[in-house]
Amino acid sequence: MRNIRLTIEYDGTNYLGWQRQPQGSSIQGTIEEALQKVTGERASLIGSGRTDAGVHALGQVANFFTSTTLSPTRLQMALNSLLPEDIVIAKAEEAAMDFHAQFSAVSKTYLYRILNRPYPTALDRLRVWHVAPPLDVGAMGRCAGLFLGTHDFKAFALSGRTPRTTVREVRRIEVEGQERGDITVEVEADGFLRGMVRLMVGALVSAGRGRISEGDIEEMLKTGARNHLVRKAPPHGLYLKAVNYG
Amino acid sequence: MRNIRLTIEYDGTNYLGWQRQPQGSSIQGTIEEALQKVTGERASLIGSGRTDAGVHALGQVANFFTSTTLSPTRLQMALNSLLPEDIVIAKAEEAAMDFHAQFSAVSKTYLYRILNRPYPTALDRLRVWHVAPPLDVGAMGRCAGLFLGTHDFKAFALSGRTPRTTVREVRRIEVEGQERGDITVEVEADGFLRGMVRLMVGALVSAGRGRISEGDIEEMLKTGARNHLVRKAPPHGLYLKAVNYG
Repeated sequence: MRNIRLTIEYDGTNYLGWQRQPQGSSIQGTIEEALQKVTGERASLIGSGRTDAGVHALGQVANFFTSTTLSPTRLQMALNSLLPEDIVIAKAEEAAMDFHAQFSAVSKTYLYRILNRPYPTALDRLRVWHVAPPLDVGAMGRCAGLFLGTHDFKAFALSGRTPRTTVREVRRIEVEGQERGDITVEVEADGFLRGMVRLMVGALVSAGRGRISEGDIEEMLKTGARNHLVRKAPPHGLYLKAVNYG
Repeated sequence: MRNIRLTIEYDGTNYLGWQRQPQGSSIQGTIEEALQKVTGERASLIGSGRTDAGVHALGQVANFFTSTTLSPTRLQMALNSLLPEDIVIAKAEEAAMDFHAQFSAVSKTYLYRILNRPYPTALDRLRVWHVAPPLDVGAMGRCAGLFLGTHDFKAFALSGRTPRTTVREVRRIEVEGQERGDITVEVEADGFLRGMVRLMVGALVSAGRGRISEGDIEEMLKTGARNHLVRKAPPHGLYLKAVNYG
C-alpha cells in the first residue's frame, strides 16, 4: 500500500461543501469518484477538514491509501483530466504511511477577500464579499490584533456539534487594505471552529463600519457571547489557503 | 434631452457578446431592457464598440439619450438593482450632447491574462488562458515591441466585414511576468480590428513557446499574411480595460 497526498484547488460555488453528502455534489465525493475510475479501487479521501458550501480552496490537503502503481504525476494528470473544471489537483506526492491530512496538520491558513466600494463587482461576484459602506481598515487591523494568541473563541463558533474545547491559538492575522477597495484578511491558527473565520471577519467588518468597538470584541472573547451586531461573513469570500504540516 | 455616459463592468461568460442579437442574450440588449424599465423610454445604447462572446469588460463605455429627470447616481443605483449580477454600472455621468461613445474615443486599452503553469486553475478558469508549456516572457516582450507604432495589422484581423483600413497605431504594449505563472499583456491602440488582441496574444504565446520568431512577426506585419502557427487566444482571458476620450 502507498499513501498519496493531494493538494487541491477548488471553486466552491457549485458544491455543498467539502464533505460527502447524500443530497448532492461535494468536493470530496467528486474526487473519490474520479479516484475510483483512475485506480479501479474504492477510495476514501481523508481531508484536512471540511469547508462549507460556497467556500473556496487554494490549498486544501487530503490523502488516500492505494495499491496503484501509477506515479504521483500520472495520478495528478489522470485526475485532472477526469475532474470537472472547478476542481484541480495542484500537486500529488508520495507521503509517509502515517501521514494523515487532518491529524498531522499543525495549522491552517485562511484568506478572506472583501471589496469595499459603493457599487458591486461583476467579475468577482462569486469571489469577494462586496461591502458598500466605507470601512475603516485601521480599526479593522486593531481589532484583528485582539484575536492573536490563545483565546476561547466560543463566541466565534456556529452552533452545532460542540467540540471538545473552543480554545484555539491564532498565530497570525493580517488585515491589508489595497488599491481600489480590495481588503484581505489572512489568518493562521492551530485549528478553527465551525464558522470561526466568517464570524471573525463579520466582527471586523462591523468594527470597520464603526458599529462595534475593540471593547466589544474583548467582551466577546471574555464572555463567549456573540454581540448581536456581529453576523457571519458570506462563504464566497473565503478561501482555505494552506494547510501546514510540521 | 440629456446625454448620459455609462462605464460598465461585465463578465462575458454568459453572453453572446456586447451587441444586441436576435438569437440570445447580449450585454447591450440586457442593459437596454433595464434602462427602459427605469426611464419608461425605449433606449438605444451606443457602445464604444463590440466585444466577442466570452470577453469581459472592466471599463466598457456607452451613452444614451433620455428625457428622464433622474440624477446619474439614481440611474446607476436603479440599473444595478435591475441588472443581473454579471453586469455592473461602475459609473453614470452627465455628458455633453455631442459625446458619442464610439466616435469620441481616441484609444482603447485591453488587458489579456495568461496563467502559465503545468496544471490548470479551478478558480480562474473563466478569467485567464491556461497555457501549460513554459513560456519565455522575455521573448514575448521583445515580440510585443514589434507591434508598437503604426502598422498594417491585416494579418491580425479575423475575416468578416472588411474595414476601410487595416492600419492601426499601437501606442503602448506591455508584457509582464508576475508571480506564480501569471502573465499579463496590456495594449493600447487608437483602434482595434476584429480579433486583433486575441491574434496578437496568440502570436506572442507562439513566440513564448519558441514556435515562431521575431522575424515571423515582422513578416506578418509586412505581408499581411498570417503565419499558420498563430492561432487566436481564447476569449475568456480578454478584458476591455478602458476606453479613452480626449
